[in-house]
Amino acid sequence: MSFASRWAELPAHVTELPGGLARGFRAGGAACGIKPSGAPDIGLLISDEPDTVSAARFTRSGTPAPPVLLCRERSRLDALRAVVVNSGNANAATGRGGYEDAARMQGGAAMAAGCHEDRVAVCSTGVIGVPLPMTEIIRGIVLARDELSRDGDASFWAAIATTDAFEKRVTVDVALPSGSVRVSAQAKGAGMLQPSFATMLCFVQTDAALRSETVDLLLGVCVKRSFDRISVDGQLSTNDTALLMASGASGVLVEPETEDELRLGEALDYVFRRLALQMVRDGEGAERVGRVHVHGGDVEAVERAARGVANSPLVKAALHGGDPNWGRIVQAVGGALPTGTPLPVDVWIEDVQVCRGGAAARYDADALGDAVSGDEVEYRVGLPGEGAETEVFFSDLSYDYVRINADYTT
Amino acid sequence: MSFASRWAELPAHVTELPGGLARGFRAGGAACGIKPSGAPDIGLLISDEPDTVSAARFTRSGTPAPPVLLCRERSRLDALRAVVVNSGNANAATGRGGYEDAARMQGGAAMAAGCHEDRVAVCSTGVIGVPLPMTEIIRGIVLARDELSRDGDASFWAAIATTDAFEKRVTVDVALPSGSVRVSAQAKGAGMLQPSFATMLCFVQTDAALRSETVDLLLGVCVKRSFDRISVDGQLSTNDTALLMASGASGVLVEPETEDELRLGEALDYVFRRLALQMVRDGEGAERVGRVHVHGGDVEAVERAARGVANSPLVKAALHGGDPNWGRIVQAVGGALPTGTPLPVDVWIEDVQVCRGGAAARYDADALGDAVSGDEVEYRVGLPGEGAETEVFFSDLSYDYVRINADYTT
Repeated sequence: MSFASRWAELPAHVTELPGGLARGFRAGGAACGIKPSGAPDIGLLISDEPDTVSAARFTRSGTPAPPVLLCRERSRLDALRAVVVNSGNANAATGRGGYEDAARMQGGAAMAAGCHEDRVAVCSTGVIGVPLPMTEIIRGIVLARDELSRDGDASFWAAIATTDAFEKRVTVDVALPSGSVRVSAQAKGAGMLQPSFATMLCFVQTDAALRSETVDLLLGVCVKRSFDRISVDGQLSTNDTALLMASGASGVLVEPETEDELRLGEALDYVFRRLALQMVRDGEGAERVGRVHVHGGDVEAVERAARGVANSPLVKAALHGGDPNWGRIVQAVGGALPTGTPLPVDVWIEDVQVCRGGAAARYDADALGDAVSGDEVEYRVGLPGEGAETEVFFSDLSYDYVRINADYTT
Repeated sequence: MSFASRWAELPAHVTELPGGLARGFRAGGAACGIKPSGAPDIGLLISDEPDTVSAARFTRSGTPAPPVLLCRERSRLDALRAVVVNSGNANAATGRGGYEDAARMQGGAAMAAGCHEDRVAVCSTGVIGVPLPMTEIIRGIVLARDELSRDGDASFWAAIATTDAFEKRVTVDVALPSGSVRVSAQAKGAGMLQPSFATMLCFVQTDAALRSETVDLLLGVCVKRSFDRISVDGQLSTNDTALLMASGASGVLVEPETEDELRLGEALDYVFRRLALQMVRDGEGAERVGRVHVHGGDVEAVERAARGVANSPLVKAALHGGDPNWGRIVQAVGGALPTGTPLPVDVWIEDVQVCRGGAAARYDADALGDAVSGDEVEYRVGLPGEGAETEVFFSDLSYDYVRINADYTT
């Protein structure tokens, strides 16, 4: 799927490539029989550079899956060398046995990568509450190891996907003052996406040479502006993981607080926002993407109002139907911000102001009809005051979302 | 639609009647041209007893509609004699002009009822952001007045309905120690229903003689156990109103803290829960009703967990498909209760325990399949501790919900 969105613009010093991994990395995927369809379901990503540094973010769920717990407790998240991922089974709500299975995956991948176990991250995605088929998993790790290659990102991506309708993968070259570096990234996610840091699985590699503190800082900032600002269905997953790894294989050293760091940050920001927007666009049956921008009020109020709009099934259904029913925006904001006195809300859809001070504005109905008919629709909400602003990207609510989710396990 | 739910049982001292209003009340509805279909769209309900007492509950929305504001500011909510309701237009997000229109409705209904304006409640429901057609409204009030009758509850109900798929109306006789009283009730609501007090429009009448404090107490208790515990789509409306009126026309005096009050309370509880469950069952395209019961934790935790499950589109889609995907219950609870350490959640679907201490339990898959195939499905969630419990009733998420809401204004 070709990508174009006004909400993630390619910076001038960043060049898209059709694929391939950042230098120092190899990846591959294989089918080991977890998915009944026989599709690829296990992936391996490794760095050949011993000094690779990294950073990670995980779901905030109160019921995190065993692989998430294992990564937090047993992995050196600042120095990961390898990632093993299976799809088709989330290894979630699997208890002590699930934790032991995740540990065995970690051990198997460490052998395949030739590194210590604590430098391996383990991720799983798929159905909840079913034990992992460990014989298949271990066989799969061996198969995936045999597939490892410098341009194995497409094969790796296929192995981590579940209900994704299209590929979410990007490779870019970044011109820094100190030299050229590459960034590659693979992400999966369509449903069960909640606006929270580290939503879904996302793996990003660069061959820039970075300190681990810089990797952590860059990951944190990028996640806040991407996966933290999207919602398909307001659902926080048990397994969400985002990893950024830097091999240093380019030989280009990116020092903190330099023009190099700024430029690399801009490139990463583009990559993260692009992948996040692709997830929203994929959003299990989604056909349109909305952006709600809320300004005024205070930090908590804009956040609650934006989430209220983005997660309203009425707003999402209206987005699906290209229905200019702006009253639902007002209703969603009011529901998110219960107060004694009425809020004088302003609402714009694209550039058409439909509500002023809480009451209907005069507007051109044809212009409004055009405004809601595009693939991307922007809603702007003004609250009293000038304190804060935020944005959330969201999917529409379609028949296909229901179809996909009414019959997932059976 | 015949009504039967294990979650609202008819008390032994309560007898269902096919229809009719409590003594002292008359109601009627008419078509005045607000709805393009020509269906009835304006209703009037009045009490002929000058000493009628009442109580009211309204939406908590931060963007309440002008009629809600008017009722709060200008109506004697403890002594209402009349209610005027229009459907097809919510008179919401209409600003100062909307408030003046609501005041004109109040004045027109006061003339029709022969009482002071401050004893009239005004309600509107329908599309948001469009001015009321006041010529039609005033004409409609006159037409509805001519239709007023003691068995006008069906006609009144038809005039307040919007996307309702079936009638929500009940009349019961209640045997109290001091004599027999009647309770009649009419409610509308299918979508934009949020678990909050006073969700949708609901009008309840009794001919028992009550103090206004007792009416307020009974309404508060009943709303907490009914409309406060349902969710179709988690959406809080701008116009929700619940009114309880007592005419005293039966001559049966119900004193506080008596067996009479207790028995009348049980009857009202049945009426409110029945109407609330009918709303959930109607829930714009809904085919099934779920009940989630959460115990353990504390008051805030059980509330958040129950709302998290009831408003999860993944859980609702699974309910729609009769899909035994219990992992989504665990995911929804985890999303609602983000913590650092994993929650040892217990989950039962009907009587089948599927999750114990956060991990999959052994269960009979056939029994589970049967458990999720009924019209009503009960989910039970146990959190650590023994502090609290709550319940929420919710609709499934169907294709028809999307169809109905993707194209409502156009």
